[in-house]
Amino acid sequence: MSAQADDIAPGAARAVARLNALNAATDDPGRLTRLTLSPAHRRALDILGEHMREAGLAVRLDAAGTLIGRLESAQPQAPTLLIGSHIDSVRNAGSFDGPLGIILGIEALALLRARGRALPFAVEVLAFGDEEGVRFPTTLTGSRAVAGTFDSAALESRDADGVSRREALVAFGCDPERIAQEARDPARTLGYVEVHIEQGPVLERRGLALGIVTAINGASRGEIAVTGAAGHSGTLPMDMRRDAAVAAAQIVLAVEEVARATPDLVATVGRMEIPGGAVNVVPGAARLSLDVRSPRDADRLAAVEAIRARAQEIARARGVSVTMDMSYDMPAAPCDPGLIELWAQTLKTLGHEDFRLPSGAGHDAMAFRGRIPHAMLFVRCRGGVSHRPDEYASPQDIESALSALTAFIERVGARA
Amino acid sequence: MSAQADDIAPGAARAVARLNALNAATDDPGRLTRLTLSPAHRRALDILGEHMREAGLAVRLDAAGTLIGRLESAQPQAPTLLIGSHIDSVRNAGSFDGPLGIILGIEALALLRARGRALPFAVEVLAFGDEEGVRFPTTLTGSRAVAGTFDSAALESRDADGVSRREALVAFGCDPERIAQEARDPARTLGYVEVHIEQGPVLERRGLALGIVTAINGASRGEIAVTGAAGHSGTLPMDMRRDAAVAAAQIVLAVEEVARATPDLVATVGRMEIPGGAVNVVPGAARLSLDVRSPRDADRLAAVEAIRARAQEIARARGVSVTMDMSYDMPAAPCDPGLIELWAQTLKTLGHEDFRLPSGAGHDAMAFRGRIPHAMLFVRCRGGVSHRPDEYASPQDIESALSALTAFIERVGARA
Repeated sequence: MSAQADDIAPGAARAVARLNALNAATDDPGRLTRLTLSPAHRRALDILGEHMREAGLAVRLDAAGTLIGRLESAQPQAPTLLIGSHIDSVRNAGSFDGPLGIILGIEALALLRARGRALPFAVEVLAFGDEEGVRFPTTLTGSRAVAGTFDSAALESRDADGVSRREALVAFGCDPERIAQEARDPARTLGYVEVHIEQGPVLERRGLALGIVTAINGASRGEIAVTGAAGHSGTLPMDMRRDAAVAAAQIVLAVEEVARATPDLVATVGRMEIPGGAVNVVPGAARLSLDVRSPRDADRLAAVEAIRARAQEIARARGVSVTMDMSYDMPAAPCDPGLIELWAQTLKTLGHEDFRLPSGAGHDAMAFRGRIPHAMLFVRCRGGVSHRPDEYASPQDIESALSALTAFIERVGARA
Repeated sequence: MSAQADDIAPGAARAVARLNALNAATDDPGRLTRLTLSPAHRRALDILGEHMREAGLAVRLDAAGTLIGRLESAQPQAPTLLIGSHIDSVRNAGSFDGPLGIILGIEALALLRARGRALPFAVEVLAFGDEEGVRFPTTLTGSRAVAGTFDSAALESRDADGVSRREALVAFGCDPERIAQEARDPARTLGYVEVHIEQGPVLERRGLALGIVTAINGASRGEIAVTGAAGHSGTLPMDMRRDAAVAAAQIVLAVEEVARATPDLVATVGRMEIPGGAVNVVPGAARLSLDVRSPRDADRLAAVEAIRARAQEIARARGVSVTMDMSYDMPAAPCDPGLIELWAQTLKTLGHEDFRLPSGAGHDAMAFRGRIPHAMLFVRCRGGVSHRPDEYASPQDIESALSALTAFIERVGARA
């Protein structure tokens, strides 16, 4: 969905127009699909490079495919503030997930430059190209290169056509052998800041344009397998059944109950199936997926264990067996308390509420965990909808975000 | 699995041997698959015809593909007792589901004849050929023809190769135009009796070889569709979800609870799916199958309505919507009280317990509902297993069933 600018400041109006125009850079005419290191990625970087140069930034493509626009400080040896987001998209995407944070970074620097503000630090706007993980099985390679946590095994990832990331980077004009040299010195980096649509309904529900992210949630994922005994749906009396589906249903409810008992935690059974199930067969097996997320790793791991214990209780009571295989464990990436506080002061000064929420979705910011202080600002999106063409943030909210980002950069300057 | 005869009466031992030998009549070498009106069906009827003739029965193939062996009464104008079961099978079947009742019918008449018993009625052993419903979408055409409830629309049913039942009957040597003339006059028919393995675990659990069937359960089948709202598993807080899968899980438990509250009723959710479900998506839709069976139609219909009401309650509480589409309704076929009583006297005389149970599975006997009094005797099967190669009834239990059937026929004679 296109954004409409109406009665908003010229910088914000231009940001909205640029977001709309970027939709033309797609690998799939008629809908927005911009896969990493694709022709559409190239076209999008060409457009962003123009915007960066127009804002007075020095532009370069780094070794991992990230386009970087740098505004030098007047002070020599000054540290650097990083502002970033991603330009790649899911298939049949919306216009805001990713590009918003890049376009606003460029616009904020253009505004500061227009106001003649000299910052006591350099600023870089980073357009990462590998956040969505659609083309290759590994992700966040651009932000990990900058954070200094790039794993070169990701160069061997291959897409559905058998092209490796290494080959795709070389074809894109990058030198994969130099990725390690993109790592920033934490001692000379003030922090990493990312503005992103919320991709959830919380801000809209609270009537707020902006929210400060407290952490990018950690996530546990896995599968729960229930094994009971299959039987004839007509001839097996209720009291002689070991029905795997009924046990699975109890586990689904236990997952919800455990999640509801823990603040900020979410837990989801997104897949639920009875392999070979038929209307007239008492299910002998059932499989569930499990996804648990929390800003606090201890809460998340405790919830997984509580679910495991409840599942075993249910299994014992029903004479079935349950296995729980948690194959994925991503720790939370708490945002920097100092940067959170700066966001809070910024928002309050601009008349916004100091509202804080965790991010349930992953973002480039999490690549900086434990290396470089990071912070995120969320922008309200309509209906919490994302990863769909009808994803939408209003021009008014985009204007609020641009004002906040600009004021935030100035505030970092005042503190630096 | 083959039955082993060991220290049992010669008639029962021969019945076991004949059941084993019938496994050679298969459409699928190496496993038992005997579809209706197939070459294996033909071979099985050739074998059964031999057995019938050896027992002194007059053999004919009726217009619907049923092989009938008739023992005339010494008394002219005497009524007829029908004894039957089916010779067709599921794919990769066991040896007992169906053939047991035919082989024991033939063996009982051979025994009575050997003992020189003159019955005051004729007896027919019927080998129906269309009980499992594997080849054509309609079933029980053989028993319905005899019962007088044959629907000629079933002649237009087609198998997977496009062959109609009419064509298959003609190729089998039957005249489909004469099926209506197979209907028996209820006034001249004493009843229909069927011996069958239980296909459930109840007799085994109770340590009983035989059980008297009270009714063939009626069945309701349908689908429950839950519609909620899909969302991102990370960004949608628990208290803002309208999760279709969690609602579906509650419905699965409600189905179990309703069934457990009603004696003899069973209810099963055999299929459970989240269309397009993914580990990181809060389910927006879920689908369940529902199968409810009971010997009492009023109980069954009340249970379906109770499940419907509970599902709507759950939907209201969770802000989701539920539709329940019950596409199939088969009334129960209660067995004849007089014949049940005869079975009870027979079993008690032979030292068995008078144990009664409903049949959860369908049988040819249900075709006679409302037309001709019918009754069934169940034989214990190991583990309640049926429709699998390891389906098994012991030679000892087969011997008990043969003795019971023989005594039952004599008792009908004493009453007639």
